[in-house]
Amino acid sequence: MCRWAAYRGEPLYLEDLVSSPAHSLIEQSHCATRAKTATNGDGFGIAWYGDHPEPGRYRDILPAWADCNLKSIARQIRSPLFLAHVRAATGGGTRRDNCHPFVHGRWSFMHNGQIGDFDYLRRPMESMLDNDLYAARTGSTDSELLFLLALQFGLEQDPLGAIGETLAFVERLAEHLERKVLVRFTAAFSDGHDLYAVRYASDWKAPTLYAAPMGPSGGYCLVSEPLNDDDNAWVEIPDGTAVVIGENGVDVRLFGTQGLAPKV
Amino acid sequence: MCRWAAYRGEPLYLEDLVSSPAHSLIEQSHCATRAKTATNGDGFGIAWYGDHPEPGRYRDILPAWADCNLKSIARQIRSPLFLAHVRAATGGGTRRDNCHPFVHGRWSFMHNGQIGDFDYLRRPMESMLDNDLYAARTGSTDSELLFLLALQFGLEQDPLGAIGETLAFVERLAEHLERKVLVRFTAAFSDGHDLYAVRYASDWKAPTLYAAPMGPSGGYCLVSEPLNDDDNAWVEIPDGTAVVIGENGVDVRLFGTQGLAPKV
Amino acid sequence: MCRWAAYRGEPLYLEDLVSSPAHSLIEQSHCATRAKTATNGDGFGIAWYGDHPEPGRYRDILPAWADCNLKSIARQIRSPLFLAHVRAATGGGTRRDNCHPFVHGRWSFMHNGQIGDFDYLRRPMESMLDNDLYAARTGSTDSELLFLLALQFGLEQDPLGAIGETLAFVERLAEHLERKVLVRFTAAFSDGHDLYAVRYASDWKAPTLYAAPMGPSGGYCLVSEPLNDDDNAWVEIPDGTAVVIGENGVDVRLFGTQGLAPKV
Amino acid sequence: MCRWAAYRGEPLYLEDLVSSPAHSLIEQSHCATRAKTATNGDGFGIAWYGDHPEPGRYRDILPAWADCNLKSIARQIRSPLFLAHVRAATGGGTRRDNCHPFVHGRWSFMHNGQIGDFDYLRRPMESMLDNDLYAARTGSTDSELLFLLALQFGLEQDPLGAIGETLAFVERLAEHLERKVLVRFTAAFSDGHDLYAVRYASDWKAPTLYAAPMGPSGGYCLVSEPLNDDDNAWVEIPDGTAVVIGENGVDVRLFGTQGLAPKV
Repeated sequence: MCRWAAYRGEPLYLEDLVSSPAHSLIEQSHCATRAKTATNGDGFGIAWYGDHPEPGRYRDILPAWADCNLKSIARQIRSPLFLAHVRAATGGGTRRDNCHPFVHGRWSFMHNGQIGDFDYLRRPMESMLDNDLYAARTGSTDSELLFLLALQFGLEQDPLGAIGETLAFVERLAEHLERKVLVRFTAAFSDGHDLYAVRYASDWKAPTLYAAPMGPSGGYCLVSEPLNDDDNAWVEIPDGTAVVIGENGVDVRLFGTQGLAPKV
Repeated sequence: MCRWAAYRGEPLYLEDLVSSPAHSLIEQSHCATRAKTATNGDGFGIAWYGDHPEPGRYRDILPAWADCNLKSIARQIRSPLFLAHVRAATGGGTRRDNCHPFVHGRWSFMHNGQIGDFDYLRRPMESMLDNDLYAARTGSTDSELLFLLALQFGLEQDPLGAIGETLAFVERLAEHLERKVLVRFTAAFSDGHDLYAVRYASDWKAPTLYAAPMGPSGGYCLVSEPLNDDDNAWVEIPDGTAVVIGENGVDVRLFGTQGLAPKV
Repeated sequence: MCRWAAYRGEPLYLEDLVSSPAHSLIEQSHCATRAKTATNGDGFGIAWYGDHPEPGRYRDILPAWADCNLKSIARQIRSPLFLAHVRAATGGGTRRDNCHPFVHGRWSFMHNGQIGDFDYLRRPMESMLDNDLYAARTGSTDSELLFLLALQFGLEQDPLGAIGETLAFVERLAEHLERKVLVRFTAAFSDGHDLYAVRYASDWKAPTLYAAPMGPSGGYCLVSEPLNDDDNAWVEIPDGTAVVIGENGVDVRLFGTQGLAPKV
Repeated sequence: MCRWAAYRGEPLYLEDLVSSPAHSLIEQSHCATRAKTATNGDGFGIAWYGDHPEPGRYRDILPAWADCNLKSIARQIRSPLFLAHVRAATGGGTRRDNCHPFVHGRWSFMHNGQIGDFDYLRRPMESMLDNDLYAARTGSTDSELLFLLALQFGLEQDPLGAIGETLAFVERLAEHLERKVLVRFTAAFSDGHDLYAVRYASDWKAPTLYAAPMGPSGGYCLVSEPLNDDDNAWVEIPDGTAVVIGENGVDVRLFGTQGLAPKV
C-alpha cells in the first residue's frame, strides 16, 4: 500500500500537497491513517509538467520524511499538473527504478494497489509488451508493468479504455492460469493535459480515493487520503469509478472490466 | 527514540539478533512495540568484534527492513561481541555519520535517548573535547557527542565512571545555562572485552532495557525490547542501573550522577 | 579539486550548462581537462533562484554522470541565476552535507580549492563563528566553513570585502599557528541578485576561472573550464581577480588579502 | 569495462586484495591502468564464502574509493574464497542490482566485458530462461543475464561447459538475427569450492586477466590487472583460456566456442 496525491489547475507549488498541509504526503509517509500500512517509507517520487511535453521527475529511495532535497524542490517548483507518491513496498526492492511515478514520453503514472499471484503472472504479462516497451521496463514492480501494458493497449488513444483492457487482461490471465483473480488498483496518470484517476478492484476493496477543489481557481486534487481535517472539502470517489480532470472541470464515470473482450 | 540489541558470549551469528527472532531488530525497525515511535527507519548500524582490537562496522541510511546487504552480512558474520542499532532520528539528518554504533579505536557505542535543549548545549559540550576528539566528530547527533565526551572523561580507564561524569556534566551544564535539565540515556558500549549498558534518566523516564541469556552457553544479550514473546526469559533492567557483561558473567550495579563533582 | 559553472542573465535551463554542452559539467565530472584531478565523482549539487528569495537546491552523493534525477531536473528548471558543482573530495567524506553549493538564507556558495593544514586550522576557524552560524554547520569541509566565516565577516553587507577578510583571516591564523600559509580559492556565490566570483591564491596558483557571454541576451556564465571548444568565446579570469555580474553587466576588480587588518 | 580480483587459498582478509596493495582494487576504481576506462566508479561488490554454502555479499552504488563500509568490512572478514569487483557501467543504471558479483544459491559470478548489440539480443536471451531463473533476474545488465543463462545451461553440472554453451548461444543468436557477433568475456565464478575464470572474446580482444600466487601457502589470485609492480609475480592468462583453481592447485585449459552445437 502506498499513498499519493495529484493536482491539475492553476500552477501550484508542489509543497502545497507534498509538505505544507497538516496531513501532507510527507506526513503520510510517516503516519498514514486510512492505509493498510501506516508507514510508507520505501522511497518516493514526484513528476510535474512544465515547459516540455514530457514531465520532470525526482524520485529517490529514502523515506520522504528524511529527504531534504524533496522539501527544497517542492518549495521551488510550481506546476499546473503534477503527481506525487510515497511508497510502501509490497514487491520489488527499494530502488529508484521501483519508485513511482513512472514516466514514458509525455505520460506519467502512479499506483496504489496490488495484483494477486503477481509472481506467476509477471512473465506472461511482460511477454505481451512490444520490444520497445519491453526495453523500457527498468524496475520490477507490478505497477510499472501495468503502466507499460496500458501503453501497449492504447493509453495514448483511449486512456480509460486502455486501463480497462489492461485490468481485464490481468483478470483473464489469472483465471486462465487458474490463479487467484485479484486486482486492486487506485491509480493516477496523465499525458500533460488531463489528469486521470481510477479506483477499481475485482473484489470491491480498492484503496481509497478522495477529490477536492484546490488552488487559486478551478483546480482539483486527487489523493489517497485527505490532506487535512476539513471533512466537508473532500469527496470520496467510490469503487468502480474513473475521474478525468481537464479543461472543463471534473468528469466522473463508472469504470469496470466486465464485458471487455478477452485477450488471453 | 531508537531500538538496539547487543550480545556477548560464545560466537553467534549477527542474524540471531538482527533478523531471525520473531521480534528481531529488523522487525522492530518497522514495528517497535515499547517505544515512543513505532518506526525506526532512519538508518541502522552494526559493530562486531573479530580478529582485530577495533570492531568492524556496517551502517547505512536506508531503513533496516529495506537493506539486502544487512541481511547477507548478518547471516555470514559470527562474533562473540556485537552491537546493532536501528535509528529513529530526533535530531541530526539521515546520513551515515549519524548512524550508531559510533566507533573510536577499539570502543563502540550506541544510544537510545535524548538531551533536553541540545541545540543550546551542543557547542559548550563540543568545546570540552581535546583536539583529537574534536576532530573525530563527523556527525551531528547528541549520541556521538556523549560518546566522545565519555572518551574525554576517561572511558578507557573507568568506563562507568566516565559515563557517569559525562551525564553529570551535561546536567550541570544545563543547570548552569538555565536550560531544561533532561538526560535520558539507555546505551550500550564495549571495548571488545566487556559489554556495558546503562539505563538512566534525570526524570526517571529512561527508555526500556532488557536482558536475557542467549547463545550456546553463558552468553547474554541486552535489548531495547524483548526479541520474542517468551516473557520468562527477559528481565527488565530498572532505571538507574548499569550492567557489565564480562568473562565472569553479569554484574548489575546502581548508576547515577548524584554526588559527582561538578565540572562546569 | 572540483569543477563548477554559474550563470546570471535571462532565464536559461539548467541543462544548458549542466548537461547539454559538449564539455558540460556532467562531462567534466568524468573527464575534466584543466583540473588536477580528471574525475569529479564525489557528489554534485545545483542551487537556483526562482520565485522565493532563498534558492532551491538539489545535491546528492552519486557521481553526476550517474544520476538520472539531475538530468531530469536540469531539463525542466529554468532560472535567471544558478550555480552548479561537481565534487572531487580532498577532505570530508562523500555525503550530501559536504556537497556544494552551500546555502544559507538567500545566499549560495560553491568553491574549488583548498586550505593548507586545514586539520589544524579547522577548530580555531570554527571558534570564530557566532552560535547561529556554528549551528548552521552540518558538514565537515573547508569550503562550507569558508562560507560561514564569510557570513560572519559581513557577506551580506560587503560581499567581496567579507571574502577578503575571511581569506586574510585564514592566512594570518596559519601564520600565527606557525602552519603552512596556503589558501587556494576559486569560488562563486550569490545573494539572488548578483553573481560573484573570486579567483585568488596565496601562492598565485589558484584553480582556473573562465567567463563567457551566454544565453539569449546579456547573460554571462562563469566556469572552472570552458564548456566547449570555441576558444574565442572564453576569457580567462586572472589570479587575484574578483568578478561581479549584475544588472549592469560584468564588473572585474583586483582582489587580494594584502593590507587587510589582522583578526587573530 | 570493469576491474575485478578473486582469491582461493588459505583464509585471507578481503583487504589484502581490496584495499591494502599498492594497486589495490579500490585504487583501480580511481586509476585503472590497463583498462579502456580509467575510472570504475559505478558501484562495487564483494562476495565471500564462509560458514554457509551460499556466499555473503556486500555491494553498493558509491564509487569504491568513497565507501567507508567497504574498508571496514574488508578489514574484518577473512575468507578462503572471495570475489571483488568495481564497476564501470556500459549499460544498466547505477544501482545495487546491477553491481557484481551476482549470486544464485551457492554460485557467485562477476564479469568484465560486453556483448555487441545487447539491446537487440536481450529479450531473446531472457526468453531462454526457465521461470525460476527468469524471476531471479533483478537487474538489467548483460553480465547478470550471462550468469543466469550459464545456470540454465548447466553451470552446476559442468561449469566451463555451461559457460562455453552460453557464449556460443549468444554468438549464434547474434548471427541468426543478423546482428554484430561480438562477445568479450573475462569473468570469474565459483561454487564455493573451486574458483573458475575465463578469458575469451569472439574478436580475440578480451579484457586482460592475470594470475599470481598469494597468501600464506598455496593460494592464488586472479585479477584484471596486477595489484603491484612486481612484474615477475604475475602471469598473463592468454585469450581463449580457462583457469580452474581447486584443491590441487591451478589447472589451465584452452577455452572456445567453436564446435559447440547451435542452440538457436
